[in-house]
Amino acid sequence: MISKNQLKLIHSLELKKQRKKLGLFLVQGEKNVGELFQSDFEIVNLFATTDYINKQAKQLTEYQLIAKTVESGEEELKKAGTLKTNNSVIAVVKCKVFTPPEQQAGLVLVLDQVGDPGNLGTIIRVADWYGIKHVVCSPDCADLYNPKVIAATMGSFARVQVSHAQLTEYLNEQNKPIFGAFLEGDNIHQCRLPNSAFIVMGSESHGISDAVAKLITDKITIPNFGQAESLNVAMATGIILDNFKR
Amino acid sequence: MISKNQLKLIHSLELKKQRKKLGLFLVQGEKNVGELFQSDFEIVNLFATTDYINKQAKQLTEYQLIAKTVESGEEELKKAGTLKTNNSVIAVVKCKVFTPPEQQAGLVLVLDQVGDPGNLGTIIRVADWYGIKHVVCSPDCADLYNPKVIAATMGSFARVQVSHAQLTEYLNEQNKPIFGAFLEGDNIHQCRLPNSAFIVMGSESHGISDAVAKLITDKITIPNFGQAESLNVAMATGIILDNFKR
Repeated sequence: MISKNQLKLIHSLELKKQRKKLGLFLVQGEKNVGELFQSDFEIVNLFATTDYINKQAKQLTEYQLIAKTVESGEEELKKAGTLKTNNSVIAVVKCKVFTPPEQQAGLVLVLDQVGDPGNLGTIIRVADWYGIKHVVCSPDCADLYNPKVIAATMGSFARVQVSHAQLTEYLNEQNKPIFGAFLEGDNIHQCRLPNSAFIVMGSESHGISDAVAKLITDKITIPNFGQAESLNVAMATGIILDNFKR
Repeated sequence: MISKNQLKLIHSLELKKQRKKLGLFLVQGEKNVGELFQSDFEIVNLFATTDYINKQAKQLTEYQLIAKTVESGEEELKKAGTLKTNNSVIAVVKCKVFTPPEQQAGLVLVLDQVGDPGNLGTIIRVADWYGIKHVVCSPDCADLYNPKVIAATMGSFARVQVSHAQLTEYLNEQNKPIFGAFLEGDNIHQCRLPNSAFIVMGSESHGISDAVAKLITDKITIPNFGQAESLNVAMATGIILDNFKR
């Protein structure tokens, strides 16, 4: 059974302020919790149904999680968590703070003011699909540890290092080409796209901020064959990554 | 002011059953309502703030909508509508029923069991970006006129014809190649992709159903460079369309 204090803790982790203060966040649902086991994230507590515990007995033993697991009713978990479905397990996990990569080869995704949690999570997932190891976010992006972000990553939060930086300061010190997505850049179908570069994506409503735009070395655009005015930022990121990786 | 009966009507249109019965649906927010003006969808009523009415006076006159417009308070609109932000205008609009395209050249998107309204809306938007005119849905896809679908299309619902069909019956009678997205198909970066074809996308959880899979002539896949197990169906659709159109 989930105690009153545990329930209070879980609910408090819906708030960024509390996550920062306590250094903890929530991972919910079988898929996302399963990815935790194989990562080096430290699980503080697991709240899980009897069914889940029986099904995962081997894993829980292997990862020494039995003592940290609290058997909970499905209704309890539903009340404690933020998901509408898939309420068999909730993990309380220690936050990790990543630093932006310095002078490394490869593609690094840079997000400027991507405030929507669902978009950030979807971007982390597609970054993982294309083998991107680092996503660097401006301070005003959504919080990685927001439950909506974690849910949308479908487990990819455990593999992609998401860090925060003042983008102008950070990019100023790097020496790889800096590609940026604009509505009036070069047609990405016709560009030579390198294996090592930064790819900057701006928010859907504001685009890339002026200060960051000044640092862009290559403006690119996804050609428009119809009449939609724009693409969702997560969608645009996926399409651009596909072009870089083909 | 919105009358009690009008409020009741608006709320009832959140339900598929009522939309079907009355043949009406809701379009909310400036961007989506703006797209209506230039389409041949018939607006039955507009509920809008004084600000909106003043700003759009020219358009409302041009499209003979003044008499159909009910001046409403922002709070009233918020209570009437389903959006959290952007509550300056709600339109009640007549549904149109589209039929699937028959023996036409070009790319046609086919969706099998895509039940999530946000995904369907995002797919319609990216289809519009790539100039796709027709999306054919299996009967168990989300309802085009669900307010969440309309919101996610960002106006593209007014340009893309979304129809419903029993997919096996429909596809059986067509003579274009039928491409389908699978996890173990041919690498889309290396396929010859024609200008005229069906592109079938299955639901995220179930993939393409067995009966439809039998009709696929070309199985394709987006190559995976990392460790994510899958992509969101809307994301996969966008990436595949980009590959077809490049």
